[in-house]
Order: sequence, then structure tokens, then C-alpha cells
Amino acid sequence: MMGDLKSVDGAFETRLRALLPDKVFRPLDPTYQQEPRGLFHGGGGLVLAPSSTDHVSLIIRECAAARVPVVPFGGGTGLVGGQVMPDATPVILSLERMTRIRAVHPSENVLVAEAGAILADVQAAAASEERLFPLSLASEGSCRIGGCLSTNAGGVNVLRYGSARDLCLGIEAVLPDGSIHHGLKRLRKDNTGFDLRALLCGAEGTLGVITAASLRLFPKPARNGTALLKVSDPAAALELLALAQARLGQGISAFELIKGTGLDFLQASGLGGRQPFITRPDWSVLIDLGLGPTQDPEEELAQLFTGAERAGLSDDGVIAQSDGQRAALWKLREEIPLANKTIGAISSHDISLPLSAIADFLDKADAAIACLGPFRVNAFGHLGDGNLHYNVFPPDGQAASDFTAWRKQVRDVVYGLVQQFDGSFSAEHGIGRLKPNELQRYGDPARLAAMRRIKDALDPSGIMNPGVIFPAN
Amino acid sequence: MMGDLKSVDGAFETRLRALLPDKVFRPLDPTYQQEPRGLFHGGGGLVLAPSSTDHVSLIIRECAAARVPVVPFGGGTGLVGGQVMPDATPVILSLERMTRIRAVHPSENVLVAEAGAILADVQAAAASEERLFPLSLASEGSCRIGGCLSTNAGGVNVLRYGSARDLCLGIEAVLPDGSIHHGLKRLRKDNTGFDLRALLCGAEGTLGVITAASLRLFPKPARNGTALLKVSDPAAALELLALAQARLGQGISAFELIKGTGLDFLQASGLGGRQPFITRPDWSVLIDLGLGPTQDPEEELAQLFTGAERAGLSDDGVIAQSDGQRAALWKLREEIPLANKTIGAISSHDISLPLSAIADFLDKADAAIACLGPFRVNAFGHLGDGNLHYNVFPPDGQAASDFTAWRKQVRDVVYGLVQQFDGSFSAEHGIGRLKPNELQRYGDPARLAAMRRIKDALDPSGIMNPGVIFPAN
Repeated sequence: MMGDLKSVDGAFETRLRALLPDKVFRPLDPTYQQEPRGLFHGGGGLVLAPSSTDHVSLIIRECAAARVPVVPFGGGTGLVGGQVMPDATPVILSLERMTRIRAVHPSENVLVAEAGAILADVQAAAASEERLFPLSLASEGSCRIGGCLSTNAGGVNVLRYGSARDLCLGIEAVLPDGSIHHGLKRLRKDNTGFDLRALLCGAEGTLGVITAASLRLFPKPARNGTALLKVSDPAAALELLALAQARLGQGISAFELIKGTGLDFLQASGLGGRQPFITRPDWSVLIDLGLGPTQDPEEELAQLFTGAERAGLSDDGVIAQSDGQRAALWKLREEIPLANKTIGAISSHDISLPLSAIADFLDKADAAIACLGPFRVNAFGHLGDGNLHYNVFPPDGQAASDFTAWRKQVRDVVYGLVQQFDGSFSAEHGIGRLKPNELQRYGDPARLAAMRRIKDALDPSGIMNPGVIFPAN
Repeated sequence: MMGDLKSVDGAFETRLRALLPDKVFRPLDPTYQQEPRGLFHGGGGLVLAPSSTDHVSLIIRECAAARVPVVPFGGGTGLVGGQVMPDATPVILSLERMTRIRAVHPSENVLVAEAGAILADVQAAAASEERLFPLSLASEGSCRIGGCLSTNAGGVNVLRYGSARDLCLGIEAVLPDGSIHHGLKRLRKDNTGFDLRALLCGAEGTLGVITAASLRLFPKPARNGTALLKVSDPAAALELLALAQARLGQGISAFELIKGTGLDFLQASGLGGRQPFITRPDWSVLIDLGLGPTQDPEEELAQLFTGAERAGLSDDGVIAQSDGQRAALWKLREEIPLANKTIGAISSHDISLPLSAIADFLDKADAAIACLGPFRVNAFGHLGDGNLHYNVFPPDGQAASDFTAWRKQVRDVVYGLVQQFDGSFSAEHGIGRLKPNELQRYGDPARLAAMRRIKDALDPSGIMNPGVIFPAN
């Protein structure tokens, strides 16, 4: 398919310039050619930033007619290279000028935003009406909601509220033939045929471009609470989760695992602020509660700790007594990725596992990595969702760049075990251009065949984000 | 497409008998040829009840090769004729022998069931491990989980827990070419390509047959409470919902609207038990809470009522003081469909609307129906989801059968207004063979075209449940 695609050339640009306002055309700034991990570099392209869905439609129609590839570009924060095409000069379709919050309907708990709206702005628009848009992730200050939906972004509140797809009630999207799907329904139930919304969410721009979405809001929890509890190991952390769920049900907004190695990395990098424990625990969990006005989160956390102590799950912990203390505990968790970056990982893995397999997986994976060499492992993340970031680092004092030859072996060990435990080699980051080969290797063959048929049916010329999800051939 | 399909004939049956055990072949019992509304009657067929996914695969492969249509059959309780094919003699593929609960993983809050498992049995298997499988609907004693997923069934707990698709983590399914999709993952996060699970949920058997599913369980709420509060009108009911959500967040499991007409119908039909109000209210809402062990649902409901009274939203109500009283209140709600059936509707509509449009819609719809004639309207249902069953009845003392000529006009009025308010003409029942024309008329053209392409790509011979979702041509 890829062989038939054309590069953007002067004639194509001239044609588009005759059809679109000057403002749509943007300089090929380096930001459009880079991605956070530095693994992919763009091969050039024509940057277009339309201000309306009609213009997106016009652009896609022209690209389809000319067989010019299209790379949709949101905030550029994706971690699998879905936003950067190295081997061609595509149209880079940036949503940066479509940033309007079209409407907030507090009585419906619905917000309608254009795809280019920054996630933090969507959160703020909800908050200004005393509502919560719960999608929350490290890049929320710069990622755009269209990108969040296209990659089905996760983050820290999935346990309670679901991931981006679950938070999306309806979409407006331009399909690969340029037609506009008007699906901005504000309905909780709509059983009228195939769920195109769910299909486009997570398709990473390979089936069309989401231009706007109607999003679910929630009542803002009246009272929040946060605790960091020491646990003996990941198995104890999972028992603590079960205990917490039995007491607090859906009141638990986040349940994050932190490994001692992560705390060491924070310390070594001068990040994360003051650490609350005198003796650095091997494992701890960060628990966040969002409760109603008649519940006392500090009291609930205190009782949870007492229960955990009695059950032998925890013998030390900190319960935040103020918003400042809550922020300080969250800072620890949120700056772990920065600390990891400072230390420099050989290989990073965004994996998920059935909850009951996590402890066993970690034992086996750590042992297998130890057989490869004296590497350090920082495993942390969204334990409540079974989603861990399992990152492998060089021995203390050595640089990751000296171990790039090990990357493939490390990856094979980790993903092989993930497969064995029926997990996923990409829990929340997606496939992008980083993992199409892994998808072919570990994916279910019948599903892969169906995906290929759907892709060919909706995008017969293969213009939409080529090389993403499906291997470039 | 339909023109190319073949009927089951003796040669086809002989071939299958050579490949499959005798037990797979079932007599063509009348239950396979009827549906609850009596609108569709089967045109015959060969009933096959395989006991394994491999046998389902074999059957579909043979049907694909011979171009014999396949009608997947679950509990037979669907309300849009998806389970009965009037104009052909298909293979009727019943899941009745694949009823195993394959596993319950309480520590993961996951259950794996075969498609033929009765919904009530799935609920019971979860309950036996102190967990909740929250999908709950009138036919739960006979509908099968595969049918629930294929139709993305809704019911009374969608407000809190989502509909069937939302409760499904993974599926095993036989695709239209007979290949088996092994997707029974037990993961909360798995971003590895297109969401085939979400696509097959709600596809009503047109893209394959779901043979098993991994399902989300929840901690069982420690304490439940139920109240029936009188409200002046639907607008007040929605304000009450907002008030309740601000206080109780996700603690509200159900929020159902009941119209006085429904209470009258119950009384006239001798159904629903004793009615709790001395003066029959024009409107009331049934609220169900599921809370943690430290919360008192009766106290919460009492405070909610006080708040509602102060805000002028309610001046009368009943709070259940025991499980028996809770059941009695629910009996009122649950027997309204039976009472409707006894009275006999001219036309029934399973619609959804943006929450803020409901009061306006009801005013306009009632006025428009009144212009047609002295009909009675019973509008009731899942108000928290914006999902109402808007049913139109003949004048008192007259029979619905005398008004069949009015059916189309009534429907056009209701669906026309639904469209105007950006609602859905099928909120939870699906399209089946009842509403493909409505889907063509009211559906988004770009989405319909994409659906057609997906259908043709995955089921090129069109064998899977022909006439469902897409009009038979």
C-alpha cells in the first residue's frame, strides 16, 4: 500500500493554497518532527493547521485524491511515535487551531470540545462548572484531547472513571474519504449500529481524524484524601487494594504502586521533594480518594490503614492532612518518570497484566532480567488497573547508551513473560510506529486479520497515518 | 447481497451431520421462531446448538462456504426481532449448550462466561464470591450473556456501571469467515490496535458470534437503599438527580422515572402490588443507592428528601425501611412493562435524549400526540441515562388493535422530535429487523457508509444475521 503513496510536492501545495486561507499553512517547526523519546525524526512535510472541520474534510479529500499521506498531530506528546513519520513527506495535520470548548452542559454532565483543546483546558472548563473531567496524565498541560482520544489515553484515574474511550460519548470525525461523521451525541445510551466512536478511539489516526468530541463529566467529589502506605511487596499492595475496594468501592480514584528504586532515583536526581519515610520502603502505594460531602477521607484512610496493619499488609504510612500535603505526596509519584529520564533507561515497557498475575510476573521478570546482567528495574504505576511501567536501567554509575545492544533482549524477556501471563505489551501508550512488529508477533491472528480488513475498507489508499499500528511495507 | 444467499437444504444438513455430534442438532421448536413482541415469525431453519467454540467455528465456516445465512440465537428475549429471520431458512445457531462460567477471579473483579450463560446465573456466580455483576434487566432470568453483549443491553444500572459493552473486558468470538478471535483478556487497559470487542458488542450478530466474554465485576455495595419520591414534573426529577449526584456521586445505582399513567395501568391490571401514595402522583422517581459500610443509605435518602423538599422539588415520598420494602418499591417499577402489555400499546419507543432536553421533549411530544387523537402516553424508564420508554396507548376502553393504522404516524411524530432534540430512536434495544429503515432515515450518512464498508469487509458473503441493522434488499 505504502508504495503507492506520493510525497507532498509543489503542485499539491499550490493546489491547497488556492483552496485554503494562508493561516492554515504553518512553517515546518522542529516540534512537528520530534517526539519525546527521540526515537523517531520526521522526514519533512507540509504542516496544515485548519480552523474548521470543513477545512479538515477538504484537506483529507485532496490527500485521498492525490494519495498523499496524512499524519494527524495533536500535542505531540505521544510516546510511540504515532505523530512523526520518518520515511516520507506527508501532510502534517495539526489540530492546534481547533481548540474551542464548544459547550459545557453541567446539568447533563457533558462537555463538547474541539480536538485541539489542551487537556488541562478541558479539565478547567469542567471545573469552572463544578464538574470533573477525570482524564489526568503527566502531559495534561500540552496534550490535546483529540490525541488523547485517538490513542485512548489512560493516566491515573482509569481505575475509577475509565480511559479516554470510556469518557467519550460521541465524536465528530473526518473519515479517510473526507466525509464528515457528525456523531457529537450527548447520550449515555444509543444502540443504533456499530460503535464507530469506540473504533476511532484508539485507532491512532489510522481510520480518520477526530475533530471534536462530547465528553462525560462527573460530579466533583466533595472531599479528597491521599495517603502513601508502605507495603511489604506487590502482593500485599493488591490485598490492600481489595481491602480498600470493599470499604470504599468506587470512592478510590487512584491506586499507584511505587518501588523503592523509584524513590532512590528521585533522590539521586534531586526530584520529588522531601521523602516522607525515614527508612526508604521497598514498596509503597499512593491511594487517592474522592468522596461525598458526608464522608471524611482522612478518617476513612486512617481506618483503612488500621485494617491494613491488622491484616499485616502495612506497618507505616502517611495520610495527607492538607491540600499541600496531598500535592507533596503526588509530586513523588508524578516526578518518577522525570527521575527515570535523568537516570536513563535501557528499555521502557508500558505493560498490563491480570491483577492476580502481577506479583508472580514481577518475580519472574526481575529474575530473568537479573540473568541478563546487573541491571536495575523500576516497576511502578497504575496498579489498580494492572498497568505497570516496567523500566530497565543500567547498573549504578553506568550509562544507558552503553547498553543499547541489550535493548532487544530485555524487550523480548519482558514481552515474552507478559504474553505468558496473558497481559498486554502496550497498556496505555498504544502501538504507533514503535510497536507494529510486536503487535504482529503477540497479537491475536484473527483480530489482526479483521483489523487489516477494516483498515483497507475505510482507508483503501492507506493515506491515514501510514506505518502506525500496521507495519510499513 | 441477500439474493446470493442459499437456504439450508438436505445436502447441507447431511454434510453437517457428518461433521458434528447428533446432540448439536435440535428440533425446530416454536421458541426459535417467535419473539416477545409478536412482530416477526421465523421462516424455518436448521437449529444447531454446538457445545464448543470449535464447533461454532466449524458451523460458520461451512455456512460461509455454502453461503447459508446464520442467525445467532441467545435467550430469544430481544425486542427488535434480531433473533428471528422471517424470509429464509437459515442456520439458527443457538448458544444454549455453551453455558459454563469458565472462571471467577474475585481478586481481579473479573468473571469469564460462555455466551449461553443466563444473565441471572452470571449475577449469581459473581454474588457467590461477594462480587456484583451489575447488568440487570427485566429478562435477566432467561436472556443469555452473549445476546446481552451482542445487543449492548442496558437496564437499570447503566447510570452507575455502564451498559453491557462497558462491562466487557474481552471476548472470544467466531468471525464471519469462521476464524476464532481469542480475546478473553482480563485487562483494564490494552491499547493494542482497533477495539474489535467494542465493535462486536452492539453489532447484533452481524459481524460474528460472541462465544465467551470476560466481564467486569465490582465490589458488592455494603449497604443498599431505595426511595420513591414524588416530583412535580420531569424537570424537577432532573434537578433532583443533580442534587443526588452532588451528594452521593457514583453511589446512585438507579434513577428511574415513573409516570402516573404507569401507576394507573398497574392498578387497572392488578399488578405492581400495593401503591405507596394515597393520592397517585403525576410523576415520581425511584432512587436506588449502593453505599459503603460506613454510610447509612436510609439516612442519606432522608437528607436527600429534606434537601429536595427545601428546593421545592418533592413534597412526598417513601424510603424503604427493609429489604422487603425495597423489593416492593422495585416491583412497582419492574411491572410497568407488564401492565403496558396488558393495556396494549399502539406503539412503543425506546428513546434517549440529552438530559437537558427531556422535559421539553416530553411537552412537545405529548402535545403532538394529543393532536393525533385522545391517546394516552406512558413515558417512564431510566431517567438518569436520558433513556425513556415512550409508549402510546389507545383511549381508555378501546383496543390497540383498532389503531394499528396510526402506528406509523405516531412513530414519525416521536422519532421526528427525537431527531430534532439530537436524541436516539433506539437507546438500548438495538436495531434488529425492526428499525433498519429508521436507521437509514435518521442515521448519520458518513457513519452508515462506514458501517456498510466494515460489514462488507468482515462478512463479504453477508451470511451473518441478514436483515439485521442493514435493510434486506
